[in-house]
Amino acid sequence: MRILLINLNISESVSELIASEARRSASPGTEVEVLTAPFGVAYIETRFEALIGGYAAAQLAAEHHTGYDAVVVAAFGDPGLSALREVLPVPVTGMTEAALASAHLLGHRISIIAISQRIQAWYREVVESYGFGGRLASIRALDRPITAIGGVQQEHAQALLELAERAVRDDGAEVIVLAGAPLAGLARSLHGRLPVPVVDGVSSAVRHAETLAALKPGRASRGSFAMPPAKPHRGLPDAIARLLDSPR
Amino acid sequence: MRILLINLNISESVSELIASEARRSASPGTEVEVLTAPFGVAYIETRFEALIGGYAAAQLAAEHHTGYDAVVVAAFGDPGLSALREVLPVPVTGMTEAALASAHLLGHRISIIAISQRIQAWYREVVESYGFGGRLASIRALDRPITAIGGVQQEHAQALLELAERAVRDDGAEVIVLAGAPLAGLARSLHGRLPVPVVDGVSSAVRHAETLAALKPGRASRGSFAMPPAKPHRGLPDAIARLLDSPR
Amino acid sequence: MRILLINLNISESVSELIASEARRSASPGTEVEVLTAPFGVAYIETRFEALIGGYAAAQLAAEHHTGYDAVVVAAFGDPGLSALREVLPVPVTGMTEAALASAHLLGHRISIIAISQRIQAWYREVVESYGFGGRLASIRALDRPITAIGGVQQEHAQALLELAERAVRDDGAEVIVLAGAPLAGLARSLHGRLPVPVVDGVSSAVRHAETLAALKPGRASRGSFAMPPAKPHRGLPDAIARLLDSPR
Amino acid sequence: MRILLINLNISESVSELIASEARRSASPGTEVEVLTAPFGVAYIETRFEALIGGYAAAQLAAEHHTGYDAVVVAAFGDPGLSALREVLPVPVTGMTEAALASAHLLGHRISIIAISQRIQAWYREVVESYGFGGRLASIRALDRPITAIGGVQQEHAQALLELAERAVRDDGAEVIVLAGAPLAGLARSLHGRLPVPVVDGVSSAVRHAETLAALKPGRASRGSFAMPPAKPHRGLPDAIARLLDSPR
Amino acid sequence: MRILLINLNISESVSELIASEARRSASPGTEVEVLTAPFGVAYIETRFEALIGGYAAAQLAAEHHTGYDAVVVAAFGDPGLSALREVLPVPVTGMTEAALASAHLLGHRISIIAISQRIQAWYREVVESYGFGGRLASIRALDRPITAIGGVQQEHAQALLELAERAVRDDGAEVIVLAGAPLAGLARSLHGRLPVPVVDGVSSAVRHAETLAALKPGRASRGSFAMPPAKPHRGLPDAIARLLDSPR
Amino acid sequence: MRILLINLNISESVSELIASEARRSASPGTEVEVLTAPFGVAYIETRFEALIGGYAAAQLAAEHHTGYDAVVVAAFGDPGLSALREVLPVPVTGMTEAALASAHLLGHRISIIAISQRIQAWYREVVESYGFGGRLASIRALDRPITAIGGVQQEHAQALLELAERAVRDDGAEVIVLAGAPLAGLARSLHGRLPVPVVDGVSSAVRHAETLAALKPGRASRGSFAMPPAKPHRGLPDAIARLLDSPR
Repeated sequence: MRILLINLNISESVSELIASEARRSASPGTEVEVLTAPFGVAYIETRFEALIGGYAAAQLAAEHHTGYDAVVVAAFGDPGLSALREVLPVPVTGMTEAALASAHLLGHRISIIAISQRIQAWYREVVESYGFGGRLASIRALDRPITAIGGVQQEHAQALLELAERAVRDDGAEVIVLAGAPLAGLARSLHGRLPVPVVDGVSSAVRHAETLAALKPGRASRGSFAMPPAKPHRGLPDAIARLLDSPR
Repeated sequence: MRILLINLNISESVSELIASEARRSASPGTEVEVLTAPFGVAYIETRFEALIGGYAAAQLAAEHHTGYDAVVVAAFGDPGLSALREVLPVPVTGMTEAALASAHLLGHRISIIAISQRIQAWYREVVESYGFGGRLASIRALDRPITAIGGVQQEHAQALLELAERAVRDDGAEVIVLAGAPLAGLARSLHGRLPVPVVDGVSSAVRHAETLAALKPGRASRGSFAMPPAKPHRGLPDAIARLLDSPR
Repeated sequence: MRILLINLNISESVSELIASEARRSASPGTEVEVLTAPFGVAYIETRFEALIGGYAAAQLAAEHHTGYDAVVVAAFGDPGLSALREVLPVPVTGMTEAALASAHLLGHRISIIAISQRIQAWYREVVESYGFGGRLASIRALDRPITAIGGVQQEHAQALLELAERAVRDDGAEVIVLAGAPLAGLARSLHGRLPVPVVDGVSSAVRHAETLAALKPGRASRGSFAMPPAKPHRGLPDAIARLLDSPR
Repeated sequence: MRILLINLNISESVSELIASEARRSASPGTEVEVLTAPFGVAYIETRFEALIGGYAAAQLAAEHHTGYDAVVVAAFGDPGLSALREVLPVPVTGMTEAALASAHLLGHRISIIAISQRIQAWYREVVESYGFGGRLASIRALDRPITAIGGVQQEHAQALLELAERAVRDDGAEVIVLAGAPLAGLARSLHGRLPVPVVDGVSSAVRHAETLAALKPGRASRGSFAMPPAKPHRGLPDAIARLLDSPR
Repeated sequence: MRILLINLNISESVSELIASEARRSASPGTEVEVLTAPFGVAYIETRFEALIGGYAAAQLAAEHHTGYDAVVVAAFGDPGLSALREVLPVPVTGMTEAALASAHLLGHRISIIAISQRIQAWYREVVESYGFGGRLASIRALDRPITAIGGVQQEHAQALLELAERAVRDDGAEVIVLAGAPLAGLARSLHGRLPVPVVDGVSSAVRHAETLAALKPGRASRGSFAMPPAKPHRGLPDAIARLLDSPR
Repeated sequence: MRILLINLNISESVSELIASEARRSASPGTEVEVLTAPFGVAYIETRFEALIGGYAAAQLAAEHHTGYDAVVVAAFGDPGLSALREVLPVPVTGMTEAALASAHLLGHRISIIAISQRIQAWYREVVESYGFGGRLASIRALDRPITAIGGVQQEHAQALLELAERAVRDDGAEVIVLAGAPLAGLARSLHGRLPVPVVDGVSSAVRHAETLAALKPGRASRGSFAMPPAKPHRGLPDAIARLLDSPR
């Protein structure tokens, strides 16, 4: 099985974190590849940055999905995910969606630990758009500047652990999600140090992508996740145009 | 006062409908201009098409907003709206958001009349993301092929009227929103023929944009609608890069 | 255009604040008039006081609406608003509803700053009845006695500003609503001193009333905002009786 | 124990229905009295009529509550109920609130059977304001003209029974509420003919009023149901003024 | 009238508290009996303990309900309540459900005061399953070890009172529910010392059980609270088997 | 890896369906075992039957979980699941929860196809208790008697397919869940015949159990899914007593 992960940030150091955790968590025989966005920002914290990231996801997925059994939007917040689900012939998931699917199997009330204050509002909107607002105990975030995005999990490990502990004690969290591609793999290194189960987006996405590819639930030919209706278009990148013109 | 409307579809015929209704509904002294997306699809019905439209909105707004007092995303569904609100120095609104603001002042339960079956799921998600799910009586839509997007309101006027009547009778609608830029101006021509108040997205957006520009509520310097934090970026269109690098 | 504002409190000093802000915010050519309730309390903070205010609104509107293009219930909490919408032949709005319509166009999460602790529970119920509960970040209120209702905004300007700042910092507010007719005009005087957009009920109501009057969305002849069915009544004030007996 | 029921409609025939059912359902030793509104409409179906009824309730309760152990707003929709709860020294309940309390003890999903199409929207708003929206299976209503309000339950018994049956079969109703003072006592006469438990507003209100009076849960001295803060007022009916001026 | 209360905990001391309060609050002529679970835990705080308690309730009710007019699940959290409602021929209620029905008639926002930190999550889930989540102001709980479950209300009376006061002041509680069978009767002894109305589960359950038995709303013969469909079963306690095989 | 599935129905024929589908869907190297409830009913459709099934799950899991890496409650509706999650040292999931986790990754609005009319109300309550109510497009069910529970998927394949098609066409379903252990494996045999992705509870539960066991998210030592506090108990089956007495 082959899984394509798309890092929507332009940071190669984060792509390496993603790739490491993806390989550690994949089943035997699963091959993973990570692409880095050719355009965009260092790390997505806002709706505007997510809009750019979503367009990068569309271009990369359109160009590179052939030959993969599943595609993962490897940025917490899942920019472009539901859009890609309409046009790709294979299952697609994202780090937030997959982390919530795991968390949902481990406890009822979920807290998300994030890397910046600013990112919280956008995360909340994404979680609510998935209908998971009622299960969100809290979002807690670092409140210090990020010096190097690829090193945030080493630099702030202790602070992140304390945020998780406060989420359990003060917010009633029954599961913790460590959010953001820059934290990929941190859950693994905190093993046994948190008072509740802890979930990582990359490993969840890889495992759930494997599951979807294995279960072969079928692709939508009707409803709102079927291919968009054929219609005139103009000025689109070739790979996107080809997707939109593919036979239905 | 000058208002910029951005048609996210590539259809010039729809831009003309938008411009006509915008001019008819603007206050004396307000100047409106309509831009048409240089890339995209004939009319947006799905999440993937909205993702493309949102990116077109970002590019057009970044390039052209200077000199305007407000910007309108002139596509129902408002692709890119919340993203633009973070980066533009003037108020921004969209056809769905503005139509809901008007409808909210006229009745409690709102029905949306749309031009295609496929478009309904996406509209519903947008309305719910605005927290208006509890006020949505129904979405009803044409179920016949659209031959020319600029002529849909003439071609299907009777069918659209009947959908509105059924929404009142069967769904408890207390206000009707005629949805989609291709229906711009239809509310005006149906005046007096519907049993409840009827709202149009373009005229609502123009009037509410005027109101926001007049009331000068101030721009966010903190919170999730302030400018995204300064950070490295790469490969972005010049106008977008300039926006992201503008002083905070 | 002529707009009638009804102050449901018996305080003439508040009527003057309302009139000043209404005139400052109205479009050129719009004429505003403010009536003061002949019976009621100094300022409405509770459900019982709102019930009295709603009845005063019904009497005043029934007696005086002729010749106006729109009517505004000029008390935050909007006593009587939905009732008046059934019987008046012109658009009606209220300070809360109109402020929420403006706020909804400026950010997602809204905080309300109020003038007394007691008033908060009633405000919350009103906001929730409008379906806006999911967008309410918080309600924060002064916790000191009000000596003169007409002077509350001067006396407590600094405390009100601090409440707004805490709502942004601690509650995630993306827009602030300064609530209550006694605060009419305060938003204008705080211009540039708040970290997020700020909305005033009176100016919002006047501008939205103008918009509704201009867009002519039509009046309900069916559904729950049509005139109440004709039926026997007894003992009602003349103006109300005439309204109920008017031809349908 | 003495319970005061206030019929907010001007119909003496309905007051008789209320009195009969109240006496049949009261415990031994409980004395009930029914007052009829001196002003208002024949039967309340809309928000405007409810506003008038609420004011009548306030006047009647203020004048007559002395000597009673509990007060019942004897109109479905409960106009004025939460307002009266702030000012009366004894427990107050209403037909809708009390019927929902009974229904809530008998099944999860509740359907309301009503006497007119028009009344449904208002009932829905009341049920939602009580936070019971998630338990409402449906509201179904007669769609024929009411010739004599006091005789509606005889005239339309069969149609009302059929509405209840359809609510069970098609809407998943697990309990039926027969709504409206004009249907007082109908539940009793349909005993054994409905496939799910059936609840009546008057008998529920009387029994729950007895329970509250017996349990003596105490009166609010703080929070939003305490007496409104003392403040200037003007032009109010004497009994209401006395209530507002009573010692705290 | 005869009412059967089932204490799902194995603590006889708690059964005595239940019996005392039940007898104090019952109407003249009502006879109450309390059974204690023959198997289970000292006091139910968690979902697993509730599962055991629910099964004990099923066995006890199946064996002993004959001759009673109503049955009460006398454990806060109501284990087994909705299950018993399907199979017993008489009305059934529980302490949580009944306390919420009372509280709902006394104020809008309700706080629950509980005896242990751990119990809060489970209580919250129960309240939300009843659709009362929107009316829950807070749950607050003792944070000290319980030495003797039957003496918790004496030992911690002052701490419980303080929790209630904080719920009113900080959480906006308009009614207090003192939760848990071990607190049966405490509301009565705190009479006049709390700033808002206070509700007790046992007395509420007894009075509401009397009301349901008196009003005779009828039993479900259709829908989800009718008897389960007849079908093969195996290995069940005799009394449960007899219930399932009883004629429909 | 070893996974234990517990069939809460007493039907061996259903256990065979579960075992077949579990083995087909498990990863290479995963061993599955299926236990059948020694007491209970032929198939669980109601809350009372679920209460019995939950207790059977507790007994079986307590006796047999040693040596397994994960446990699956193999009955749609997941009786006992959240209770077991408190006490078992390994991950536990259930058919409904796991099917929703899969469905959530494939589309937004989910319809459940069920085997009996009666079962729908209980399924709806379970889905809502998981916070998935907002994503439920509909539940549709067979309306004919079940002659042999192990053969229902053969006997009614065409009817089940038609229910799924109606859910897509009329209810806006974007994913279908085929619900109930008796339908285990049907999704596989309908492959390619449904217009949207289709999800099976048994295969989802097996794959997600594997994922949880592989990701090792950790066990709760605090919060509401930690072991219940140590306390006196009485009369419990040995295996359950041992679980409750195990060291914390």
